[in-house]
Amino acid sequence: MTAQLERKDGPRSKRGVILQAAIDRFGRDGFEHTKWATVADEVGIGQTALYHYFESKAHCLLTIMNLELAASLQRFQDATAGVDDHAKRLRAAVASAYDVTPSEALAARILLSHMDLLSTPRPSEREEAERQQARVLVRAIEDEWSAILEQGMAGGAFARRDPRQSSQAILSLLVGVWRWYRPGGERTLSTISEFMTGACERLVGP
Amino acid sequence: MTAQLERKDGPRSKRGVILQAAIDRFGRDGFEHTKWATVADEVGIGQTALYHYFESKAHCLLTIMNLELAASLQRFQDATAGVDDHAKRLRAAVASAYDVTPSEALAARILLSHMDLLSTPRPSEREEAERQQARVLVRAIEDEWSAILEQGMAGGAFARRDPRQSSQAILSLLVGVWRWYRPGGERTLSTISEFMTGACERLVGP
Repeated sequence: MTAQLERKDGPRSKRGVILQAAIDRFGRDGFEHTKWATVADEVGIGQTALYHYFESKAHCLLTIMNLELAASLQRFQDATAGVDDHAKRLRAAVASAYDVTPSEALAARILLSHMDLLSTPRPSEREEAERQQARVLVRAIEDEWSAILEQGMAGGAFARRDPRQSSQAILSLLVGVWRWYRPGGERTLSTISEFMTGACERLVGP
Repeated sequence: MTAQLERKDGPRSKRGVILQAAIDRFGRDGFEHTKWATVADEVGIGQTALYHYFESKAHCLLTIMNLELAASLQRFQDATAGVDDHAKRLRAAVASAYDVTPSEALAARILLSHMDLLSTPRPSEREEAERQQARVLVRAIEDEWSAILEQGMAGGAFARRDPRQSSQAILSLLVGVWRWYRPGGERTLSTISEFMTGACERLVGP
């Protein structure tokens, strides 16, 4: 996600470091428990300067969610591009979900924990813009999964079932990991990826 | 969950109606968007009386989560008790997850959306007590699932895989539904239950 963190502004912008500090705090201590002033202190920036980038803690959170959704979609597309075999493409898509840095894993956890924020309109214009964009990205990721499943069904590689329901089921399964995954914990990302690849192959099977 | 809502106090207690009003509000408008005073108004109770039951909006939320976890565990145990056949017990357990009233479906959605609250200690004693109890219930539900899977593996009905990882995967799959399910929506609980039963059978299969 480093590329996205540095994307919007010039090299002197503090946006990237603010986002990185916020991901660390929200991911480790929880969004509710993090004081917005702590993030400002950590980055060494005043409240006024902070406001230039994010008008609220929620605005920053929605931005993190958006960036993680965009990164996740990008990983999916990079991993599956040009893979014509249905079963191989499914495996590549699953693997892309766990091909993440520790910071991306934290961002994925933050995203999962606050998905409900996307269902109700935000009071401010900037927050609402982030929310709308996040909703578009969620739908785009679901569409990518549905397309893989539909093509696999049409090609006879996967059993025929409702592709939308199937893609939502696979996404629930894949992202559920971020609830309990901790870097350095008992299960590594590669163990998880292997388990989930098998699980998804069985889910689309006969 | 009606039984649980009326459990703790006598028949004149407002606890049940407060919880019901809060479930409706948190479930439909979101926890963050619901003003605690709105719940008090809706029930026709003053702030002081409300405080007697719940010291904060978060305390009420944690109580709802707890009640839904307890109800979910109870449904699971009722549905699977005395079912000796491994495959039938798995199906009964899946069905129990969707054998819910509209209010329980809302509570399940609230629970899913705020699971991250359970990972960090609460500032107040009463909130922390609810959080600790919720964690015990989450673990108990995971244990029930692990036991079903382990017994099925030992009995040769299910393929051998890490039972803890498998039970977490099944739980992610089952509860993920509450993210998008809406009463009166395109998919009914019985359609969802049928789909998920097949999905879980394939997940534990060879």
